[in-house]
Amino acid sequence: MSTLFTGISELVTNDPSYGGPLGVIPHAALVVEDGRIAWVGDRGRAPAADQARDLGGRAVLPGFVDSHAHLVFAGERSAEFAARMAGERYDGGGIATTVAATRAASDDELRTLLAERVAEMRAQGTTTIEVKSGYGLSVADEVRALRLAGEVTSETTYLGAHVVPPGADRDEYVRLVAGEMLTACAPYARWIDVFCEPGSAHAFDADQSRAILERGRDAGLGLRVHGNQLSYGPGVGLAVELGAASVDHCTYLTDADVDALAQGETVATLLPGVEFSTRHPYPDARRLLDAGATVALATDCNPGTCYTSSMPFVIALAVRELGMTVDEAVWAATAGSARALRREDVGTVRVGLAADLAVLDAPSRAFLAYRPGVPLASTLPH
Amino acid sequence: MSTLFTGISELVTNDPSYGGPLGVIPHAALVVEDGRIAWVGDRGRAPAADQARDLGGRAVLPGFVDSHAHLVFAGERSAEFAARMAGERYDGGGIATTVAATRAASDDELRTLLAERVAEMRAQGTTTIEVKSGYGLSVADEVRALRLAGEVTSETTYLGAHVVPPGADRDEYVRLVAGEMLTACAPYARWIDVFCEPGSAHAFDADQSRAILERGRDAGLGLRVHGNQLSYGPGVGLAVELGAASVDHCTYLTDADVDALAQGETVATLLPGVEFSTRHPYPDARRLLDAGATVALATDCNPGTCYTSSMPFVIALAVRELGMTVDEAVWAATAGSARALRREDVGTVRVGLAADLAVLDAPSRAFLAYRPGVPLASTLPH
Repeated sequence: MSTLFTGISELVTNDPSYGGPLGVIPHAALVVEDGRIAWVGDRGRAPAADQARDLGGRAVLPGFVDSHAHLVFAGERSAEFAARMAGERYDGGGIATTVAATRAASDDELRTLLAERVAEMRAQGTTTIEVKSGYGLSVADEVRALRLAGEVTSETTYLGAHVVPPGADRDEYVRLVAGEMLTACAPYARWIDVFCEPGSAHAFDADQSRAILERGRDAGLGLRVHGNQLSYGPGVGLAVELGAASVDHCTYLTDADVDALAQGETVATLLPGVEFSTRHPYPDARRLLDAGATVALATDCNPGTCYTSSMPFVIALAVRELGMTVDEAVWAATAGSARALRREDVGTVRVGLAADLAVLDAPSRAFLAYRPGVPLASTLPH
Repeated sequence: MSTLFTGISELVTNDPSYGGPLGVIPHAALVVEDGRIAWVGDRGRAPAADQARDLGGRAVLPGFVDSHAHLVFAGERSAEFAARMAGERYDGGGIATTVAATRAASDDELRTLLAERVAEMRAQGTTTIEVKSGYGLSVADEVRALRLAGEVTSETTYLGAHVVPPGADRDEYVRLVAGEMLTACAPYARWIDVFCEPGSAHAFDADQSRAILERGRDAGLGLRVHGNQLSYGPGVGLAVELGAASVDHCTYLTDADVDALAQGETVATLLPGVEFSTRHPYPDARRLLDAGATVALATDCNPGTCYTSSMPFVIALAVRELGMTVDEAVWAATAGSARALRREDVGTVRVGLAADLAVLDAPSRAFLAYRPGVPLASTLPH
């Protein structure tokens, strides 16, 4: 069964052969056959298909790739958020609350919550989603999180090294994460990730992060790093040195960090929803782009520091706050975040690829930032 | 026909008799009969009704009141927006482009665009919408805008004094706005509004604004002012002196302005979507609230400086950027903006009032700011 989509005011392909990094085809048409892109081009040259659908002057782009999301959790922390915004002290337990609620939830409860979050993201135009563990922090609970994550995505990330669990001995926990827990989790994960932030009481320093990442690499996992979120530190340098696919946050960067990112193969993934929801300073995408680094955008959807699931909102923030142009932000949220997952089969529109597409209730991609907060994006049904 | 709504995790009434300014009833129920609120209270004491509907643990609140919106226009200015965000010079004509496109559109075209915008707002939980003219700037075009606006709302605002039209003589145009145009428009308007900004080449100074507002008042219209958006100036003082219902923007305020707002009857309506979309500094809601002024929130939905239609986005911005607590922002977007329209029958949940209600796909009002950009709000169907 093939469907011809017409009435596409502009089609963002991210294929430079159509010109520019975004490869925009104006007045485009698109044929989808059995879930795959079968034809792309000017509407005047569109082939016949079994059925036709007129999109009425809407923009179509690659489905958003959300390369950083913590979706396997129970409970919520809106009271902590409200207190933080009001400048009040809050002793509600923070991440430990989420760990306790997640451990206490049944498989089916977590499965339902995860499915709701994935559906919510898809409804906003996101078609590829990375899902991390990290609220289990025990062998059984981390394995469970990854097993459930694997039911909804192939982009599963083992994040036993999210934080040191309350009451645990740090060195012992590092040995567990790099040893027994890794062995148990590796079959369920594509990636391993570490929260490298030496200044934080709950996160991991450079040596601990390196040990965990190297063991993960030995176990066949790709590498990701949470780095330089709260202060200057070793996360970015370590990620580039080890050839991680992505280092995420990148808020506090030295010139050496920027140079390393510009010269290495590691994508800098920015998560401005976090800064929006915590009132921390925003990362400087302009500086990274001007230096030649590859920048991706993702949500970091999680119940503590950023509970948005909206890639359009992240794009609007990137344009308002990170110094990105609309086109840079759109590329970073699609092709950039695909690169952060080392995927060449998503984040782009090309014949033969899966028809993972976002459609906007608007004539151009600029509306993603021009109309902030308005739910314009959805996934193109086919 | 009566419907009992159960499964309301919290019901925001804005009725202080339930406690606090928001009058929140936890574990609430609600009966709607023939479009009106027939009963409100604890779910354990809910009466019977013809049918029941379980909201499954969702929060319900008064429908948002968007007291400042420019919805009668044709065309769009995304290229101007993208250039502004990229720091580039843009000579596309600005507001004159919108005036030309609006004048060129047929009644039916404008009617369709207006209906789409109203539907988009309702889909995001807004149930009362003020609509301004101001892209006609001729007698016939301003009358037409107000006539069309009156088809969708009773909150119609004559804004002939939006800007001096390109090529027009300023003094002549002020005479037109306060004379023939006012006479023609008054039958179609509840309010008159003026863009009072003496430093702007296109707006109106204190004397011109006063003359227009006083003639409007003589013609039976309520008063509103765009004031102190771009610089310190006379707008706020004039609005309070003349007893305007609202002065909108309020970005640049002296202590005397804040005192006047605290002591007068004029609501300070803040429009942070504008600052988001123009990178101007945000107004300081905290200062106004601490002084005792009444603060409202609205979108300012318009194609030039802020094309959001999302009251939830405005609430999230108010919490992030204006120093408002979640509860202050929710009140300002409902009861506060109702007060800015001098309406006692909207922005609150009370037996006998129309069932203009927003429902959140979330358990509490805090999620409006806790989950920025996520389309959680809709209008409760009944």
